[in-house]
Amino acid sequence: MPNPSAAMLVIGDEILSGRTRDANMHYLAGELTKHGVDLKEVRVVSDEAPAIVAAVRALSGAYDVVFTSGGIGPTHDDITADCIAEAFGAHIDVRDDARALLADHYAATGRELNAARLRMARIPDGACLIDNPVSIAPGFSLENVHVMAGVPSVFQAMVASVLPTITGGAPLLSQSLRIDRGEGDIAGPLGELAQAFPDLSIGSYPFQENGAFGANIVIRGSDGAQVDAAIARLRETFA
Amino acid sequence: MPNPSAAMLVIGDEILSGRTRDANMHYLAGELTKHGVDLKEVRVVSDEAPAIVAAVRALSGAYDVVFTSGGIGPTHDDITADCIAEAFGAHIDVRDDARALLADHYAATGRELNAARLRMARIPDGACLIDNPVSIAPGFSLENVHVMAGVPSVFQAMVASVLPTITGGAPLLSQSLRIDRGEGDIAGPLGELAQAFPDLSIGSYPFQENGAFGANIVIRGSDGAQVDAAIARLRETFA
Repeated sequence: MPNPSAAMLVIGDEILSGRTRDANMHYLAGELTKHGVDLKEVRVVSDEAPAIVAAVRALSGAYDVVFTSGGIGPTHDDITADCIAEAFGAHIDVRDDARALLADHYAATGRELNAARLRMARIPDGACLIDNPVSIAPGFSLENVHVMAGVPSVFQAMVASVLPTITGGAPLLSQSLRIDRGEGDIAGPLGELAQAFPDLSIGSYPFQENGAFGANIVIRGSDGAQVDAAIARLRETFA
Repeated sequence: MPNPSAAMLVIGDEILSGRTRDANMHYLAGELTKHGVDLKEVRVVSDEAPAIVAAVRALSGAYDVVFTSGGIGPTHDDITADCIAEAFGAHIDVRDDARALLADHYAATGRELNAARLRMARIPDGACLIDNPVSIAPGFSLENVHVMAGVPSVFQAMVASVLPTITGGAPLLSQSLRIDRGEGDIAGPLGELAQAFPDLSIGSYPFQENGAFGANIVIRGSDGAQVDAAIARLRETFA
């Protein structure tokens, strides 16, 4: 059985303007690979409702599971929850379970649960809450979409809550070999290797170091014996 | 006149598997903002032809200009040029102008222009070459799509070649203010500010520092006087 497929949707003008360098994509990619889920596509869109709704619908229909990052805070530019509801035609309002979490938290910390903070309790009908041990305001899962915060510490905590609920496949194993020759010199044998091992993914990542060319060859697959055999043949070829 | 809109397509299994952290998106985002081009969407797809072709068609149709990164080297997994040709129904083969660039380069450096390296001279009919001062193998522009290498030093050199050919709008100006209060405390006045300045984009980026909450408020727009006025009002409100 093939591994489940996944997509990620990053919501945030700050990434697209170059102000912030996204960190969540790289984190999620690594976690999914370990868990045996194949991340097949990432999209980054701006804080505009039509763009978010369209991307949620497209990704939710095309992949087994979708993760979103960003846009669930208390300010006017946090519109992700409402967009998810719209994408699935679900009703959304402040929900009692989420409100209770926030009320307890703000009472305990002596701050006011004002109208802005109550926005963080807007959860679509039918969604399950995702625990936020960092700052309490929850994420949620609706259909096959998991909606998480953009702040990296919160995002990572939410991924840790959600991943165990997803049935992964065999983790992708990988081995790599550094070859200190230009890609053009190794491309022929590398293509033959890829043909001999059709179940493996063989990638070549070139670099330049002190003026000399080289490439890191990465061989990935879920069958460890095949990965071992391919890397052994690669070593022999370029020994 | 609104600024031209742009999208980026990052091609690479190594990003989606978490092996490599993409650097080109953040670089391009910053350069486009300075140049007055609005980056509206980024997609990351794997090294699979149907995914690349579909993304090129979708983005090319939806935005004024598209930039791709990755997949134009000499190895078997470098299929971007052929996918771009397919997306536009263009014929593709080794082209004389690109072959001449490579032949000169490899002759000068005493290396062989073998079949693998010749793959880097595969350029669709009708495309203009993009100069590669780092490692010679060119990128190309076809219709509104600019096809560039994934290696960051080469990508950046190609962006420097392409950007002057694109008519940008007014650069996006931004000012930011750090407010050491939780987003929930400032969201109300911030929403009112956004309504008072509908032409500006007002973003709130929360952080936690030594256990205390704060947010960086970023105000962006192409009219400097408006940005100044909005940031002044923000300062007053939270002084």
